Amino acid sequence: MTGNNIQLDEHGRLRHFLTIEGLKKTILTDILDYAENFTTVGHQPVKKLPLLRGKTITNLFFEASTRTRTTFELAAKRLSADVLNINIDTSSAVKGESLLDMLRNFEAMHCDMFVVRHARSGAAHFIAQHVAPHISVINGGDGSHAHPTQAMLDVFTIRRHKQEFQNLTVAIVGDIMHSRVARSQIHALTTLGVPEVRVVGPQTLIPVEAEQLGVHVYNDMQRGLRNADVVIMLRLQRERMQGALLPSAQEFFECYGLTERTLAFAKPDAIVMHPGPINRGVEIESTVADGPQSVILEQVTNGIAVRMAIMAMTLGRHQGKDSDTQFEELD
Amino acid sequence: MTGNNIQLDEHGRLRHFLTIEGLKKTILTDILDYAENFTTVGHQPVKKLPLLRGKTITNLFFEASTRTRTTFELAAKRLSADVLNINIDTSSAVKGESLLDMLRNFEAMHCDMFVVRHARSGAAHFIAQHVAPHISVINGGDGSHAHPTQAMLDVFTIRRHKQEFQNLTVAIVGDIMHSRVARSQIHALTTLGVPEVRVVGPQTLIPVEAEQLGVHVYNDMQRGLRNADVVIMLRLQRERMQGALLPSAQEFFECYGLTERTLAFAKPDAIVMHPGPINRGVEIESTVADGPQSVILEQVTNGIAVRMAIMAMTLGRHQGKDSDTQFEELD
Amino acid sequence: MTGNNIQLDEHGRLRHFLTIEGLKKTILTDILDYAENFTTVGHQPVKKLPLLRGKTITNLFFEASTRTRTTFELAAKRLSADVLNINIDTSSAVKGESLLDMLRNFEAMHCDMFVVRHARSGAAHFIAQHVAPHISVINGGDGSHAHPTQAMLDVFTIRRHKQEFQNLTVAIVGDIMHSRVARSQIHALTTLGVPEVRVVGPQTLIPVEAEQLGVHVYNDMQRGLRNADVVIMLRLQRERMQGALLPSAQEFFECYGLTERTLAFAKPDAIVMHPGPINRGVEIESTVADGPQSVILEQVTNGIAVRMAIMAMTLGRHQGKDSDTQFEELD
Repeated sequence: MTGNNIQLDEHGRLRHFLTIEGLKKTILTDILDYAENFTTVGHQPVKKLPLLRGKTITNLFFEASTRTRTTFELAAKRLSADVLNINIDTSSAVKGESLLDMLRNFEAMHCDMFVVRHARSGAAHFIAQHVAPHISVINGGDGSHAHPTQAMLDVFTIRRHKQEFQNLTVAIVGDIMHSRVARSQIHALTTLGVPEVRVVGPQTLIPVEAEQLGVHVYNDMQRGLRNADVVIMLRLQRERMQGALLPSAQEFFECYGLTERTLAFAKPDAIVMHPGPINRGVEIESTVADGPQSVILEQVTNGIAVRMAIMAMTLGRHQGKDSDTQFEELD
Repeated sequence: MTGNNIQLDEHGRLRHFLTIEGLKKTILTDILDYAENFTTVGHQPVKKLPLLRGKTITNLFFEASTRTRTTFELAAKRLSADVLNINIDTSSAVKGESLLDMLRNFEAMHCDMFVVRHARSGAAHFIAQHVAPHISVINGGDGSHAHPTQAMLDVFTIRRHKQEFQNLTVAIVGDIMHSRVARSQIHALTTLGVPEVRVVGPQTLIPVEAEQLGVHVYNDMQRGLRNADVVIMLRLQRERMQGALLPSAQEFFECYGLTERTLAFAKPDAIVMHPGPINRGVEIESTVADGPQSVILEQVTNGIAVRMAIMAMTLGRHQGKDSDTQFEELD
Repeated sequence: MTGNNIQLDEHGRLRHFLTIEGLKKTILTDILDYAENFTTVGHQPVKKLPLLRGKTITNLFFEASTRTRTTFELAAKRLSADVLNINIDTSSAVKGESLLDMLRNFEAMHCDMFVVRHARSGAAHFIAQHVAPHISVINGGDGSHAHPTQAMLDVFTIRRHKQEFQNLTVAIVGDIMHSRVARSQIHALTTLGVPEVRVVGPQTLIPVEAEQLGVHVYNDMQRGLRNADVVIMLRLQRERMQGALLPSAQEFFECYGLTERTLAFAKPDAIVMHPGPINRGVEIESTVADGPQSVILEQVTNGIAVRMAIMAMTLGRHQGKDSDTQFEELD
């Protein structure tokens, strides 16, 4: 059956990383286990491993994002890869070279990996369908569809704090409808066996198909957070709030903002997560964002390790990636 | 006499690479032979050679070109050089620092090579005339004058398919007048001994001095392609077609577009080339661009090898570049 | 008392480099001595040292400056560090992530150093006050406050030509009021024991507190340059000359431009300096800028060595930076 999943190669190994949907628990667990190896790199005097030396990793960003691009660039450089940053203005891309011709060109230059960020859902998937066999594609966020590396760093962070997934209650709060992060988180959490995944927000911002994803919908913050082990706040995209979906950011904060008061609805040892960048006072109060339960900055740190793991797994399929010697520190 | 050619050093070795014009056949053949060494780099697990380790290569781009900049950046990184990308807005360059002062500054920082792209013909030549003795300049395209690395990758591709130059008929089709690529190709092909170089296009897009370059002019596609071994299509710069030179892109395609029908005028084993990016349906039909005779993507691949060769030859003059050990794969 | 200086760590070693003000002579002399080690790197076949291998240096540029960014990027790469270039549009930075949240994120990614350029005075200082203990901050220019690496390369250049500071007369000419370079130079020169530091310019461009800095104010070029060993010309920021402070650039040049005639007021062996980029014919005549007394391009060369020294000192505090083996050439 692996042959049906474009993300896996003919031996069932991870080749692309486009979406959590359709990946088995064992694959996700492999990524998490493998990422553990990379958590110490950031503390070494020489923060580099030779795993992807001489590989060419191309950041194909059709949507500007210094922040996300930086995390992938750092992960690639710490694996000793060469990095090309290509920012494509989609307006000019339209009139000139077609996307496929552009891909063919990068392939012909022997690029090994594309990290793709695009405003259109499905863009990374489309590219993965059309690249040469030796190339891996990583989805760095596509429209409102998926942001799978973000979801993996989130579940990695949860596992480091809660060890096991099978007894957890995780609440995701905010604009679920427009969030590629939420979509990917839901797939990751349910695949890894979290029994209770909740989405919390105004009904207008909950997608109608939410319940089919196996999550529980709450429109009330108190009930949504009750006994939660993990509270994930989403970033409020203010530009999306202009319309009739919600009256104002202030009203949103009053109903769904995470404050010391609302956090108290969750378990006392609940951790607070956010994909960043945070809007202080919009979806989360500063005392909570900076408080003892917040693991927001750990997510950032773990993001480098998880992206290194995914890059090394997908590109290292043919070179015995598990060899211990490759984890020896460079000097 | 080598002293008269700014591109050669006092020992007759290639120092700059600005234009094909004035370079002897032996130099061009040396580049082609040397480039053969680099064609395998793209297939190695570690796509890097240490030839230019610790050298500083500066991409001075006065004209935006992600595509060309990328090929030079990749070639430099695969030679282990450090790369600086400098994009200069010529409008601001005018009011601020003069070009020569900027060059003096980069020289003082011990840059070793400038790859220059400029909208003005002669820009790279001007820079080469004024740089310090240890610096090499590569022309990455100057106005409508020359694009010599493109021409070298083209003849490299031709040689790989046709082995020898001395019996070939090569047809270059399109807007010859405004094409720096065509100018450089003509010089490369005639220098290497191609007996029949043709330019094919409407008379308004053929420069008046064409015949003096030793080429044959054809205004008719059928006659122009007859018995051709190589068909090189130029990119139609639509913005240049606005004026009175040609009525419309559609009319151009009808007369000079490469289709399965017109390609049949050439020899059955003719190869089809294009410097890219292609305008599908404007100067070339998709079935031809993607067809069995097309070597367009091979050109892109060869472009990395040829640029590596030129960079390594010009910068490696003093360090025994031919040492076999330097071609050993890194690990 | 070192505990009071944010630039020093608890052992009195240089941790940040934000301003010359408050640094003792021994620290400045240490930097100059250490920088001597790096002057030969630019002449080596492999212009790299492994001192900062695996470190991540982030150029945080809130104000565009290709020139300054390039010198830091080159210095970092020649120390084998990984470099991230982050250009922050302050207008968008305002509406989005706060500066401190941005810093926290880069810290969480295990960045080791921020090179900060900002239009607001005090920006680098502010950042240094808030970064994690392992991070060093270098001020790449903040408003009209300080540009300390520029001042250090200037005094380094002076020492190479004049050996000792204690008998020198140094004249700084131009718009002292708005110049972060002049402010830092004054602190460096007086700290290193230059007995006579002069500022020369129209009274409207001399800050009222000038005399408190221990400098002598001259409004007359002839008297200001008399017997000077060093003449430092500042760049005239023409955009600042629009107002009532000065009638015109031409009038400025007549009174305070450095020409062969006015340079003759100084000692015959006086050296001429300028932080660049120079405005030929505005603050300095070409024959002087390019003349035998000019050391302007040496300043650029020395700027790489001095920045390498400051980066290696601040980041290398914990790793025995003085080990001779680290200065061995790479091959």
